[in-house]
Amino acid sequence: MRILITGAAGFLGSHLCDRLLADGHAVIGMDNFITGSEANLAHLAGHPHFLFIRHDVSNFIFVPGKVDAVLHFASPASPNPSSPFGYVNLPIQTMKAGALGTHNSLGVARKHNARFLLASTSEIYGDPLEHPQKETYYGHVDPIGTRSVYDEAKRFAEALTMAYHRFHGIDTRIARIFNTYGPRMLLEDGRVVPNFLQQALRGEPLTVFGDGAQTRSFCYVDDMIEGFVRLLLSDYHSPVNIGNPVEISVLEFAEAINRLVGNTKGIVFMPDRRGEGDPQRRRPDISRAREVLGWEPQVSLEEGIRRTIPYFKEKLG
Amino acid sequence: MRILITGAAGFLGSHLCDRLLADGHAVIGMDNFITGSEANLAHLAGHPHFLFIRHDVSNFIFVPGKVDAVLHFASPASPNPSSPFGYVNLPIQTMKAGALGTHNSLGVARKHNARFLLASTSEIYGDPLEHPQKETYYGHVDPIGTRSVYDEAKRFAEALTMAYHRFHGIDTRIARIFNTYGPRMLLEDGRVVPNFLQQALRGEPLTVFGDGAQTRSFCYVDDMIEGFVRLLLSDYHSPVNIGNPVEISVLEFAEAINRLVGNTKGIVFMPDRRGEGDPQRRRPDISRAREVLGWEPQVSLEEGIRRTIPYFKEKLG
Repeated sequence: MRILITGAAGFLGSHLCDRLLADGHAVIGMDNFITGSEANLAHLAGHPHFLFIRHDVSNFIFVPGKVDAVLHFASPASPNPSSPFGYVNLPIQTMKAGALGTHNSLGVARKHNARFLLASTSEIYGDPLEHPQKETYYGHVDPIGTRSVYDEAKRFAEALTMAYHRFHGIDTRIARIFNTYGPRMLLEDGRVVPNFLQQALRGEPLTVFGDGAQTRSFCYVDDMIEGFVRLLLSDYHSPVNIGNPVEISVLEFAEAINRLVGNTKGIVFMPDRRGEGDPQRRRPDISRAREVLGWEPQVSLEEGIRRTIPYFKEKLG
Repeated sequence: MRILITGAAGFLGSHLCDRLLADGHAVIGMDNFITGSEANLAHLAGHPHFLFIRHDVSNFIFVPGKVDAVLHFASPASPNPSSPFGYVNLPIQTMKAGALGTHNSLGVARKHNARFLLASTSEIYGDPLEHPQKETYYGHVDPIGTRSVYDEAKRFAEALTMAYHRFHGIDTRIARIFNTYGPRMLLEDGRVVPNFLQQALRGEPLTVFGDGAQTRSFCYVDDMIEGFVRLLLSDYHSPVNIGNPVEISVLEFAEAINRLVGNTKGIVFMPDRRGEGDPQRRRPDISRAREVLGWEPQVSLEEGIRRTIPYFKEKLG
C-alpha cells in the first residue's frame, strides 16, 4: 500500500513509518514540526519508498499520486502544562489538528477511496468513573476544562470519523491509544516514564508526588505499533482500545526504574500536585483488541524500559 | 452595537434579529438556508439597520465594516431522524458548523475584538445521569453514536470558545439552550410541541409514545431570547443554562394542547419508540442564570402555546 501518515515526525508516527516501510509499504510522511522532531525521521532520508511533505494538516492536504491508506496521527499529545509542547500551551493548534486536520485527512481518504485510521486516545474517557475502561464507556470529560482542547478535539475527531464512515462509506478505524513509552518519546512529555528515566540517569532521587499509590499502565511502543498495523489490516470500524492493561503503582514503577538503571539515590516524596482533570487512574480493557485483532502486549515493562534507556542516555548526552 | 448573527434565518436566530433590531442595534444576518428559512426573515427586507449575507459559516467569514458582537447560532438543530432537516441526516454539515463554523466565527470576533456568544445546547449533557442538569455536570454523551454529530460538535465548540477566551482573551459567552418552542419553529422539528400542535389543529388524536410519563421542559422563545440578551450584556464567561425548569409529563402536555386548541379527539398511545441516545429526561438547573443574569422564564406554558397556535394555523393553511 501507499500510506499517508500525518504527524509522521512524532513519537508514534515515526515508529509507524519505520514499521510500514519494513513491511514493504510506501510511506508519505507529513508533519509541521510543531511538536514532532526532524531527528525522528532523519534516518529515513533518501529511503526509496519514503516521501516527506512538510505541511500543517489544518490546511487542505494535497498528496501527489495514489493513496491507499491515511493514518491521522498529527496532534500535540503531551499533557505536560510546563512544556512548550504540552497541548494546554498549544490549545488552538490542538483543536485545529483534531477538527480541521481530521476533516482534511478524511478528505484525502474520501478522494482516494482509501482506508482511514484515526489516532484517538484514552483521554476521551477523561477522568473515568469506570475501571478499567471499555470502549462502550462514554467517558467523563469536562468540556470547558483546560484539557478539553485535547479531549474534546479527539472526541470530535471520533464523531467525524464515524460520520464519514456512515454517511460517505469511508473504510475507517479508530484506535484509542493509552500511555505509551519507548525511544523517541518527548523528554518533556511530563508523564512518569521520561521524568523517572531522566532523574535516574542523572543519578538523582526520583520524585514521587503523593504517596505513589496512584497507578499507571504503560505500553511499549513496539506493542502499540503492532496493534495499529493489525487494526489497519482488519475491517473493524468501532473504536479499539490499544494499551497495556497491566497496572502498576507509581511507587513500584520508580523502584523498577532505579533498579534497571542502577540508580542508588532512591525516591523522594512530594505533595500531590495532580492538576485539573489529571486522571487518578486509567487502564484499558483490551478484550476487544484481543478478540478482534488477536492482539495483546508482548513486551514486559522491564524489557521495555531496558530498550528505552539507550535513547534517554543519548539524549542526555 | 453592530451584531453578526450566524444562523439568522433559523428559529432562534430570526427572533434574535428582531429583538436586537428592536433594541436599536444594527444586525448582520448570515445563513446558508440549509435548515433556516427565508420566510423567517422576509419581514426584515429593507429594514435600514439589517444586512443579510448568504454564506456558509464553514467557509472563511468576511463581514464588511466593524463588528461589535458575534452570535454564533448556525447549525442544524433538529433531532428528528425522519426529517431532511434533522442533524443526523446532515452529519457532515452539522460537524462543520460546530467546528469550522465556530472557528470562523471566533475569527471574526478576534479580528474585531468583538464579544462572542456561542449557542450551545443541553445536548452536550447527552442522556444525563444527573437531574436537573447543572452547568458543572460533564454530561453523558456517546462519542460515536449517531447523535454525536451534534453533541460532540457543540462540546468541541464550547472547548474552542473557552480556548479563544483563555488564550486570545476573546470576550466570550456560552449559552446552553434547552428545549424551546414558539412561532417559526421547524414543523418537522420532531419534538412534541410541533407534533402535538399539528395533530391537534388537524383534529387528529395526539400520539403519545410509551405511557406519557416521560417529562419535558419547554421554554417559550421570548423568554429564551431575553436570556441571550442578558447573557450578551453580562460579562460572564462560563456556560449558562437557559431553559425552563418546569417539568411536565408528555401526557399532561398532550392534554393541555388538546384543551387549548379545542381538539376533542383525545390521545392515542403507541409503543415507546425512543431512539438511540434520545434522553428520557432533561431539565435545566437555572440557578446560575437566576444569579448571574437575574433571569428566569416569565411565560407560562399555556400562554406560550396560545401565542404559538396562530403560527401553526398559518403554516397548516
